[in-house]
Amino acid sequence: MDKPKSIKELRRLFHQQIKATNFLSEPKELYAPVNYFLSLGGKRLRPVLVLLSADVYGFDLQRAMPQAIAIELFHNFTLVHDDIMDKAPLRRGLETIHEKWNSNIGILSGDAIFVKAYEHIVQVDSTYLPSLMKIFNTTALQVCEGQQYDMNFETQKDVSMSSYIKMIKYKTGVLIACSLQVGALISGASKEDQAHLYSFGLHLGIAFQLMDDILDVYATQKDFGKQIAGDILSNKKTCLYLRARELANNNQREVLDLYFSSQNFDPKDKIDKIMKVYTVLKVKKSCLQMIDEHHRIALKHLSLLQVTDDRKSSLKEFSKLLMVRQN
Amino acid sequence: MDKPKSIKELRRLFHQQIKATNFLSEPKELYAPVNYFLSLGGKRLRPVLVLLSADVYGFDLQRAMPQAIAIELFHNFTLVHDDIMDKAPLRRGLETIHEKWNSNIGILSGDAIFVKAYEHIVQVDSTYLPSLMKIFNTTALQVCEGQQYDMNFETQKDVSMSSYIKMIKYKTGVLIACSLQVGALISGASKEDQAHLYSFGLHLGIAFQLMDDILDVYATQKDFGKQIAGDILSNKKTCLYLRARELANNNQREVLDLYFSSQNFDPKDKIDKIMKVYTVLKVKKSCLQMIDEHHRIALKHLSLLQVTDDRKSSLKEFSKLLMVRQN
Repeated sequence: MDKPKSIKELRRLFHQQIKATNFLSEPKELYAPVNYFLSLGGKRLRPVLVLLSADVYGFDLQRAMPQAIAIELFHNFTLVHDDIMDKAPLRRGLETIHEKWNSNIGILSGDAIFVKAYEHIVQVDSTYLPSLMKIFNTTALQVCEGQQYDMNFETQKDVSMSSYIKMIKYKTGVLIACSLQVGALISGASKEDQAHLYSFGLHLGIAFQLMDDILDVYATQKDFGKQIAGDILSNKKTCLYLRARELANNNQREVLDLYFSSQNFDPKDKIDKIMKVYTVLKVKKSCLQMIDEHHRIALKHLSLLQVTDDRKSSLKEFSKLLMVRQN
Repeated sequence: MDKPKSIKELRRLFHQQIKATNFLSEPKELYAPVNYFLSLGGKRLRPVLVLLSADVYGFDLQRAMPQAIAIELFHNFTLVHDDIMDKAPLRRGLETIHEKWNSNIGILSGDAIFVKAYEHIVQVDSTYLPSLMKIFNTTALQVCEGQQYDMNFETQKDVSMSSYIKMIKYKTGVLIACSLQVGALISGASKEDQAHLYSFGLHLGIAFQLMDDILDVYATQKDFGKQIAGDILSNKKTCLYLRARELANNNQREVLDLYFSSQNFDPKDKIDKIMKVYTVLKVKKSCLQMIDEHHRIALKHLSLLQVTDDRKSSLKEFSKLLMVRQN
């Protein structure tokens, strides 16, 4: 078996593959947006995880490419439709499909990307097809459910931390988990290993999303590449906000409720007032503890994986990537 | 083998099945619209065709139910998204999802219905799964393409009859064809029989859609259940219009182009003027000839099916149903 490949090398291989994959077809009004969106790039995290997991078992990575592409297509389908629902003008710094064309084109080209994902996922040894379809379908439905929970939270006044965790688990965690399981499944890994990789990915995915909430407020703009405290300005119920609301006394809760009731406050003043509450209540530390806990569970599952330690190197590298983002 | 079941009996069995199928789950904001839409009913033509085709081979119809439901779910998914794209306020006389809730709910619950379709289609003997997924994916993508062609035609000035036929083939024909093939496939029918059933359905589907264009104008309101000549009032490019435009002299073409350029004409006057052109050019007869041709091809494929004539009775019944609609 070859030495396990680094994440960087796996990413390079996937980039090469997706560049060589042509989605252009007729009618061009449907497929031009599909190709445009897929060319926007991004981290390609999920397909790389498919390859990474297949590589743990020394599986031929070329044979894992259809599933890697399927997962990336599915992820892009959700982004296209989410962008319409969120009325997002930009994605990766460029116009979203519904902005560049219109909502109808966004809906339909999203649907087409979804079917393309299924066209790719089925390109597997038929022995594995039933279990592969099962995990993929279950995940796809959970991602839809996660998006619905997310939309519900916008207007829901009392959101509990546990329902928030469930939402990010469905919206982000399960697809990362699924990516890792799929790579193992098509490589012939045992059901136990598949389950451990799923849980490893699930908890890292949750930790990843919680970290995103923290970085939105506490990263320097240069590191993060987004507007600082955008979540506060848009009244997004993040783990910081939810923990603050749990811990707040009456005065602090009034401040949170007042500033999160409108987007018309002076931005600097709003951020200052909210962050003062966050600081007093030490919510950053509390959320970092949650992240540590999920990270710990993830590593526990990694340790139970029935492969030699040297095969786990890239999985370890992946889990560390997340923690580095704290700085 | 039992005597083949009538379409009425198959429809009764399917109604029973879908009533007993529960799509309710959490979050209710996502699944209430799913259940609402599926309860709106409709002809259930496509799932009945899955059963009909399985029944040709004496296959246990309970085992064909997951695929029948899958096809119905897929069809409903396309309706939910098409209704958003077409801004349709009503479906089967009741509010569409995006009207009763909003567009975001329409997009997301449509997506969920689509995944549910995949969850059902895969419930099959694993021997058949790869070929089943192939036909289902291909069809799903073609239906998306058909919807795009349909949207293109709204703003496209010169639409040829052949591109119109391609559009209705993709938007309507392929799913009817797929329904029949799927029923045969899961019943273990030969590839040749599957192909004949596919072509039988495809050409009947095209004929069905062409007939719809004719009935819009020439049916009495009571028979058709829709506003008479709604297609003329909404400037829809139907086979009647396209044939008329092919055959028109300069004066007639001016009348067609003028009245199809706006929706602000007096409705009665508009219908009169357009129908006068249709009558002079005998476009109804010409379109009926096209229908006959597709019907003839369909029956040719039916005759080539390698089953005894008595097994074909319901397929014949189905092909006649279409022609009865002429009266």
